[in-house]
Amino acid sequence: MNAHIISIGDELLIGQTVNSNASFIGKALTEIQINVQKISVVGDDKKSLLNEFKEAFANSEIIIATGGLGPTHDDITREAVVEFFNTHLIKSDEVLEDIYNRFARLGREVAKINETQAMVPAIGRVIRNYHGTAPGYWISEKGKIFIVMPGVPFEMKAMMNEFVIDKLKEIVDSTLTTVKKQSTLQTTGIAESTLFERLGNLDELLNGAKLAFLPSQFGVKLRITVEEKDEEDANSKLSEIEQKIRGLAGRFIFGRGDEELYEVVAKLLVSRGLTLSIAESCTGGYIANLLTNVSGSSKYFERGIISYSNAAKVELLKVDEDLIAQHGAVSLEVARQMADGVRAISVTDIGIAVTGIMGPLGGTSEKPVGTVYIGFCDQKVCTAFKLQFGDDRIMNKQRTAQAVLDTIRKYILGIPFEA
Amino acid sequence: MNAHIISIGDELLIGQTVNSNASFIGKALTEIQINVQKISVVGDDKKSLLNEFKEAFANSEIIIATGGLGPTHDDITREAVVEFFNTHLIKSDEVLEDIYNRFARLGREVAKINETQAMVPAIGRVIRNYHGTAPGYWISEKGKIFIVMPGVPFEMKAMMNEFVIDKLKEIVDSTLTTVKKQSTLQTTGIAESTLFERLGNLDELLNGAKLAFLPSQFGVKLRITVEEKDEEDANSKLSEIEQKIRGLAGRFIFGRGDEELYEVVAKLLVSRGLTLSIAESCTGGYIANLLTNVSGSSKYFERGIISYSNAAKVELLKVDEDLIAQHGAVSLEVARQMADGVRAISVTDIGIAVTGIMGPLGGTSEKPVGTVYIGFCDQKVCTAFKLQFGDDRIMNKQRTAQAVLDTIRKYILGIPFEA
Repeated sequence: MNAHIISIGDELLIGQTVNSNASFIGKALTEIQINVQKISVVGDDKKSLLNEFKEAFANSEIIIATGGLGPTHDDITREAVVEFFNTHLIKSDEVLEDIYNRFARLGREVAKINETQAMVPAIGRVIRNYHGTAPGYWISEKGKIFIVMPGVPFEMKAMMNEFVIDKLKEIVDSTLTTVKKQSTLQTTGIAESTLFERLGNLDELLNGAKLAFLPSQFGVKLRITVEEKDEEDANSKLSEIEQKIRGLAGRFIFGRGDEELYEVVAKLLVSRGLTLSIAESCTGGYIANLLTNVSGSSKYFERGIISYSNAAKVELLKVDEDLIAQHGAVSLEVARQMADGVRAISVTDIGIAVTGIMGPLGGTSEKPVGTVYIGFCDQKVCTAFKLQFGDDRIMNKQRTAQAVLDTIRKYILGIPFEA
Repeated sequence: MNAHIISIGDELLIGQTVNSNASFIGKALTEIQINVQKISVVGDDKKSLLNEFKEAFANSEIIIATGGLGPTHDDITREAVVEFFNTHLIKSDEVLEDIYNRFARLGREVAKINETQAMVPAIGRVIRNYHGTAPGYWISEKGKIFIVMPGVPFEMKAMMNEFVIDKLKEIVDSTLTTVKKQSTLQTTGIAESTLFERLGNLDELLNGAKLAFLPSQFGVKLRITVEEKDEEDANSKLSEIEQKIRGLAGRFIFGRGDEELYEVVAKLLVSRGLTLSIAESCTGGYIANLLTNVSGSSKYFERGIISYSNAAKVELLKVDEDLIAQHGAVSLEVARQMADGVRAISVTDIGIAVTGIMGPLGGTSEKPVGTVYIGFCDQKVCTAFKLQFGDDRIMNKQRTAQAVLDTIRKYILGIPFEA
């Protein structure tokens, strides 16, 4: 079955809000084998909405629209739905009760404007909202399914997870004749064209399956798509292709699906029972933040020192003041001492440090913006190496973090750092 | 003039990539008074692409398409452009030279597959790519402008900033008869419906202008749009409405435009000459990361301690072991001592601390997941308070950071914390 996602709101058109809702919905639909044909974004304008509803209703079996259901004057989705289906509004006691319960829980009074949100299109049924006041609607008409939800991400997500996906899956499962499966391998540290050449003859590799290359500044994702007559065949073909790709570019592959590199590293640390501490200068806590995004991170993460000032480096990490004077705070030597220092005071298996110039200011001809030194120590060895990134401060933080995490991964797996 | 943005790529439909390109382009066009009518996302499929080109070309004066220009087999945008405009490919020496120069700089050899990227549609002109190998195209046909760019964000952004926007602005400026201006006020700590009621009679307040409410879990943005006969009138009307809104809800407004709260706080700290240090437990460095996202942050940020373990709290922050035993590491008392401790060892004006349970595991009936304590000390006073958030680990980190940053803002501006 084909789906069309319609995202509603001027804030999306003018770039004030990034359309993460459509991605979330697209991903959820793909997982239950609904083919997302199109996503469109239109403004808070009834005519545009009606046009889009018409196109979507003509071309797709499932239409999911989000946004424009709020309590204020600029929200016109409900009105457009009523006009499109030639229906009228009725009061939903169920929704009114939800609104009153919600406000009671929050210890707030129900505003008049919230009460009007209990008026819903007479056609279709209500999708209850346990995280906000605007209900969603599920409308079945002429063999098509038309779903409307609020645009506030966590309200929409809860409706999807608690109701919409299960119901759609039931409907879709009864119509399928083949099984389509996708899997994604994530690489880092290799250019798209190099990877492409490394994989050689794609027709031979894929044998009828599809492969997409998805590059970003952090690496290239490889998405494999197979379509077979049953689950078993699809799984075995997928894993066969994955194995071949791993054979050709394995050391660059850090994970599957949308696994984050920090999650992979966290799992490796936990499985090997290793602990680490980190001293960050230029990244200002960004790497520690990623390492602690995983529930249970206290198993491997002992402490972090954000030694922004030289005083902090000397006092907390026992970096030699003369060394800073001689080589500068941004240097191979200081990176190594910081890593050694944080490991010593924290008594962890691994000590890591980063010092660099994130920009856009502060570069010199010898050490331009984007210069980063990473220090890495374990019980036996203390080493440090240099990386060179670009001019963008935030991107430099992110790429440094990626490099540090990949260094930990390689260390644990025994892959040389410079690979 | 009206624009239609077309984003190309299966990865967008299946939710593997969030469409931040369309937001970037939408914002840039809006700033030069081009009205973004529609954004659509279609897959790497020639028929869908041709359909979308046709619709866009019929309804909008400016069409901007991104994605599907890479060197690999799944990139079919160039082919679709050639077919749509009934043209053919020619070799661009300029592009070939750019590719050779680029690879020489990177010390890599040009792959055959990259050479084919120098073949461009004979119609229109090339937009050079200084950050990658795929060039863009600028096509003027039948009074419409059709722009094609790669989907890799920093390649597209550079083309927009270095070429496309200036050229479009020239064309647009010659057609305008009124001046449209927008400004956005950012609030935090107030619900959408409360804010709506606080603003009272909107017709009176706006006097013909438009106001949009944009809620998220961090606060509500208010976007004001005016359209007047000249720049001066537009500016004065905008600032008049802004003033009125500030009069009604000023203490909740932390910034304008898309200013981040951390940027506002950074400016306040610099302007008052204040320094700070932070001790983070549950947020794992996230707050320090935000505070150091601003260039020049070393002026106010001295150091951060990510005291994940109790040992780190005791050793580095001098938190009393008995206090931890008595109240637990997640407590008002420990938050206060952490803030006091980090301030003392760092010798800064302000010391801040956070300790909490981010989840999804680790909650108790007394201290459920989402419980956070914030400690805040200056030279005279040490205080601490409690916040309660939800179950989502990442969102809890973000909301804690928002609350801490807003606490610093209120402190500097003399607004009570509990407001």
